[in-house]
Amino acid sequence: MISTGIIGATGYVGVELVRLLLSHPEVAKISLSSVSFEGQNIVDVYPNLRGLLRGKTDGVLGDADSVVEASDVVFTALPHGVAEKYAAACIAKGKKLIDLSADFRFDEDEATFTAWYKKSYEFPAVHAESVYGLPELNRDKIKKARVIGNPGCYVTAATLALIPALEAGIVKTDPIIVDAKSGITGTGRNATEKNHFCESGESFAPYGVGNHRHQPEIARNMGFAAGKPVNVVFTPHLLPMSRGIIATVYAPLVKPLSAEEVHALYARRYAGEPFVRLLPLGSTATTKNVRGSNYCDLSVHVVNGGSMLEMVSALDNMVKGAAGQAVENMNLLYGFAETAGIDHVPAAF
Amino acid sequence: MISTGIIGATGYVGVELVRLLLSHPEVAKISLSSVSFEGQNIVDVYPNLRGLLRGKTDGVLGDADSVVEASDVVFTALPHGVAEKYAAACIAKGKKLIDLSADFRFDEDEATFTAWYKKSYEFPAVHAESVYGLPELNRDKIKKARVIGNPGCYVTAATLALIPALEAGIVKTDPIIVDAKSGITGTGRNATEKNHFCESGESFAPYGVGNHRHQPEIARNMGFAAGKPVNVVFTPHLLPMSRGIIATVYAPLVKPLSAEEVHALYARRYAGEPFVRLLPLGSTATTKNVRGSNYCDLSVHVVNGGSMLEMVSALDNMVKGAAGQAVENMNLLYGFAETAGIDHVPAAF
Amino acid sequence: MISTGIIGATGYVGVELVRLLLSHPEVAKISLSSVSFEGQNIVDVYPNLRGLLRGKTDGVLGDADSVVEASDVVFTALPHGVAEKYAAACIAKGKKLIDLSADFRFDEDEATFTAWYKKSYEFPAVHAESVYGLPELNRDKIKKARVIGNPGCYVTAATLALIPALEAGIVKTDPIIVDAKSGITGTGRNATEKNHFCESGESFAPYGVGNHRHQPEIARNMGFAAGKPVNVVFTPHLLPMSRGIIATVYAPLVKPLSAEEVHALYARRYAGEPFVRLLPLGSTATTKNVRGSNYCDLSVHVVNGGSMLEMVSALDNMVKGAAGQAVENMNLLYGFAETAGIDHVPAAF
Amino acid sequence: MISTGIIGATGYVGVELVRLLLSHPEVAKISLSSVSFEGQNIVDVYPNLRGLLRGKTDGVLGDADSVVEASDVVFTALPHGVAEKYAAACIAKGKKLIDLSADFRFDEDEATFTAWYKKSYEFPAVHAESVYGLPELNRDKIKKARVIGNPGCYVTAATLALIPALEAGIVKTDPIIVDAKSGITGTGRNATEKNHFCESGESFAPYGVGNHRHQPEIARNMGFAAGKPVNVVFTPHLLPMSRGIIATVYAPLVKPLSAEEVHALYARRYAGEPFVRLLPLGSTATTKNVRGSNYCDLSVHVVNGGSMLEMVSALDNMVKGAAGQAVENMNLLYGFAETAGIDHVPAAF
Repeated sequence: MISTGIIGATGYVGVELVRLLLSHPEVAKISLSSVSFEGQNIVDVYPNLRGLLRGKTDGVLGDADSVVEASDVVFTALPHGVAEKYAAACIAKGKKLIDLSADFRFDEDEATFTAWYKKSYEFPAVHAESVYGLPELNRDKIKKARVIGNPGCYVTAATLALIPALEAGIVKTDPIIVDAKSGITGTGRNATEKNHFCESGESFAPYGVGNHRHQPEIARNMGFAAGKPVNVVFTPHLLPMSRGIIATVYAPLVKPLSAEEVHALYARRYAGEPFVRLLPLGSTATTKNVRGSNYCDLSVHVVNGGSMLEMVSALDNMVKGAAGQAVENMNLLYGFAETAGIDHVPAAF
Repeated sequence: MISTGIIGATGYVGVELVRLLLSHPEVAKISLSSVSFEGQNIVDVYPNLRGLLRGKTDGVLGDADSVVEASDVVFTALPHGVAEKYAAACIAKGKKLIDLSADFRFDEDEATFTAWYKKSYEFPAVHAESVYGLPELNRDKIKKARVIGNPGCYVTAATLALIPALEAGIVKTDPIIVDAKSGITGTGRNATEKNHFCESGESFAPYGVGNHRHQPEIARNMGFAAGKPVNVVFTPHLLPMSRGIIATVYAPLVKPLSAEEVHALYARRYAGEPFVRLLPLGSTATTKNVRGSNYCDLSVHVVNGGSMLEMVSALDNMVKGAAGQAVENMNLLYGFAETAGIDHVPAAF
Repeated sequence: MISTGIIGATGYVGVELVRLLLSHPEVAKISLSSVSFEGQNIVDVYPNLRGLLRGKTDGVLGDADSVVEASDVVFTALPHGVAEKYAAACIAKGKKLIDLSADFRFDEDEATFTAWYKKSYEFPAVHAESVYGLPELNRDKIKKARVIGNPGCYVTAATLALIPALEAGIVKTDPIIVDAKSGITGTGRNATEKNHFCESGESFAPYGVGNHRHQPEIARNMGFAAGKPVNVVFTPHLLPMSRGIIATVYAPLVKPLSAEEVHALYARRYAGEPFVRLLPLGSTATTKNVRGSNYCDLSVHVVNGGSMLEMVSALDNMVKGAAGQAVENMNLLYGFAETAGIDHVPAAF
Repeated sequence: MISTGIIGATGYVGVELVRLLLSHPEVAKISLSSVSFEGQNIVDVYPNLRGLLRGKTDGVLGDADSVVEASDVVFTALPHGVAEKYAAACIAKGKKLIDLSADFRFDEDEATFTAWYKKSYEFPAVHAESVYGLPELNRDKIKKARVIGNPGCYVTAATLALIPALEAGIVKTDPIIVDAKSGITGTGRNATEKNHFCESGESFAPYGVGNHRHQPEIARNMGFAAGKPVNVVFTPHLLPMSRGIIATVYAPLVKPLSAEEVHALYARRYAGEPFVRLLPLGSTATTKNVRGSNYCDLSVHVVNGGSMLEMVSALDNMVKGAAGQAVENMNLLYGFAETAGIDHVPAAF
């Protein structure tokens, strides 16, 4: 049993972490902080939690330093550019940190981080040892890490869609098209025109065409799997629903392959992966089937007369795309069962 | 052909007025003002209007005084408590004003206005002559008015549900229960937690139980129809949809009546009303059937073994509940056909 | 560890039972039947379950008799009027049955059952011993029962809203008004005009006004709590969302009481109830806060100048209103912790 | 003033035609037929129309032959494969017909029609003279036609997105990727699992990947614009909303061009088009802005370092994608203003 803490507990990712940790069998304690609601109780901010704190927390939203002090492992669920100092503090005190912002997603490439996030590294030593927390790519490194950069939501969907194809070299990479669609929880808890019900309901559109910050992260991951640079055209869209991401990914095949051949390749690569569900041929991945869970569903399609691989990847942006994957990383860090606390059966509706 | 103006053109009620006036056959000109977006073009704030200004406006959002100057009739679509001075100015200049806030809804009863809206009257003379703009109650007075207080959205639904029963004295009045439900446009354009898609979608709840400001306005209207004070229990709820209000109204019958008898009474009272659609017995009023239109659908039900009248009233809160009714009042003021510019056929879906 | 079975596993209530039992710590086995999909695998009907059967079931949808044979306790999630024979069979074989239709909700009153459901009892002996499964009313009887009639969804919300007030005699009972609103899962899995997205989305209306079959069940329960007949006016409405029920309940107070006094009464009555969450005064029950969980949130309001009690009751119609309450009854039957397998923390969004 | 008729008036496209024709200034009469509801009144099937038939129709749903007899122009809104005989009858009687199925979309290519729709032509002479009704491509031919094949919804969005680029030869064509997303009205009025609120709400997924029947129609149109065969990869997805289509279209540029250059090209090609709104650079097309209207919004984006044209096309699938475009074709056939009856200002919400 471990003590956990969440810095930024009242954002959407933060409170989703609270939900998961409250039911986690290896978590004894959860400390919470929030700048916006410091001093209040999380039950008053999120009444869904009323009566369900289960002795793991009193719900009081304290300050960040106290959370670090009280915890074996700290989750930072903050805006980009704020987590570094907590990571440094955790290392200094022999604790671990899992960050859910972009701050530790580009450790090997500060230039790209700076270009997209307008910030330099203040604690380079932390970046030198932090690990990118996508278990399907980095499981062994994650187990030994002290600081983990949890991947972006779109990024997880897009990367899982193509790892096997890129590792096997069956697709061309200039460019790969990622047409992705996300539920509105991705805009966060802050009320804006973008997430106003009457602006976003009964509507649909792309946004950030050609300049969304998940593009370089996807390209980097794909390049890592391919062993060479990959060009990615990435278009995010906002869906009139709360949770879920679909990435529809188009990659030309190097030479014609049958859907069966590609499916077999994916089945081999993902055998034993606890959270990747490769659907049988003929099925199509759908956000509904993974809602509220840590699973990523993948369906394989070969189109355009056998010349194009089209992958559909579905996950819950708040779980496998954020808080669930962070708990998965925690499980790896501490040698717990990888599925502990995140094995919810998605509801049918 | 007249010149119109909208002060507060970029709120939800304001832009709905723009939509209606752009297609109105008797409106030659629309002047616009906005505090939030002054100097910008309404097409940039509401791109749905792109290319559709039709020579009636250049779309530039100016200041309120210029709107008064340029218009024969001014619509004020502002927060409560701001419209008085524009009304006084319009009277002084021989113009007309239709206010969509609560400022002229309680003219005969400043005490109630002050109790609920925390403001005294600054221009009592205006209130002395302004008229409450519910055509089904006040049509003749409206035709001769210079300042009109447009009714609240919930209020219109609830009042229309009971005018015939109250005028005929067939229901008891202590209390009448109005259980009402509104779409989210009722919260306005300002982004808040209440209208965040992820807070309001897939959820439902009452709010303001026992202390919503439409309660005294409903009670006053019902008392006017009944010729005596009426006690109203009013509970608003927020629906996970954009447009539409249902008021489910419960009023005990003085003596048992059949549904047929009540229906016949309503049919007589509302014969010739252009915007009240009394549904045949066996049908139930539904927001879908009036969406985007100025119609109010009413269905009559007698329940509890013949002892309780239950009325269902459905309208579009942005049209008959706000902008459409304001245009209806304008039509009455100028002797246009009452349905001019607001005879849209509601879509089936 | 027990063996469970579900007859009618592919309806919405059936598959929600599957979801709950798959994670239930005391359930070793789940047998499944379906008339519509007999011979198929539930994973092909509900792909959300793919890979998550956890050795408790092979997913094959068999016939009802085999389910009875294989199970210690059988859940029947069938249309009204079909469960009796399975109940008789279970009793004969020393097994237990929990029925989620109306078949065992009126055991003491066949006339009412027949009037509303157009069917007589074929196995009167079963009805003589079956128990109505609302734990907050009947916990001790449930523990010793062999056949349980699980309450209706609206009924659970409405009944829990008033038990304390009726038992204490603080409200008048002629009539009590229950204005209730349900998500669309309540219409079941069968595709109809009523649950067509384009008919039900962005719309809202009452249905079955004055003649819904949950009315007599609510009145019976309330009468049981009051110790005398209670008159209930019940109006259900269909919300444009999937899960959740709100019952807004209006009951005149016998004599004026403060909200504090009523709240204290409710707090005493529901102390120790694991699934009733009485909200602090000033809060309002909301479906969002209980979504996916077995909790029923209650808020207390006193309105109309202290003369009217208004209760708001919120629950998930598929969980506390159906499958979750059935599992709660199973827990009581077998002496498991009452919350076993149904202690999910509702998500914040 | 002309007499119009709708065969198949109670499907979603049929009733949308009713809505538009009721307000059309040149339409004196509307005759209606329906197989499913023959003998009933359309007001009972679609209560939104109550009281709004305006002397143009009595609402009675008759048989198809009577509709042909009574009308100058007939709209057939039927399943694929049924309209041919009505077209032949209209030609024989000197009337005109506009078909909203696929039956006259492939006149020059029966083989493709047969391959995708499993039906041969029974009246080849009709196909020899019928015209494909996309005004932006075929306006002059439409004006002189007697039978018109109205384009598919996805097809209209995708084709309008690329006509200028293909005509100018600035994009490569092997393949062009069309990632398209549609509201649920596209599934029609028939209730199915696909349009069940609880299956389609809060969910999103592609369907028909690699084998949707709009693919050959898009490829044919694009080939027509390009003057050579075009390879199209087309993926439709189903959005959790009622109305609207977005097509996100990816076409590699033959040589690098700036967004300004492409935008200027589009501006020239679409100058004077009444229903294409080319958005200024920096804006993104959104379904909300065209909802309920006949406009198609287009936004231009150049991505991947200047090597890829990405177009976003937004329209209302029931209006410009079906009934509105059919009325536009009628306007062209009769020399009415092209915008007559279909110049609705889309609402802001």
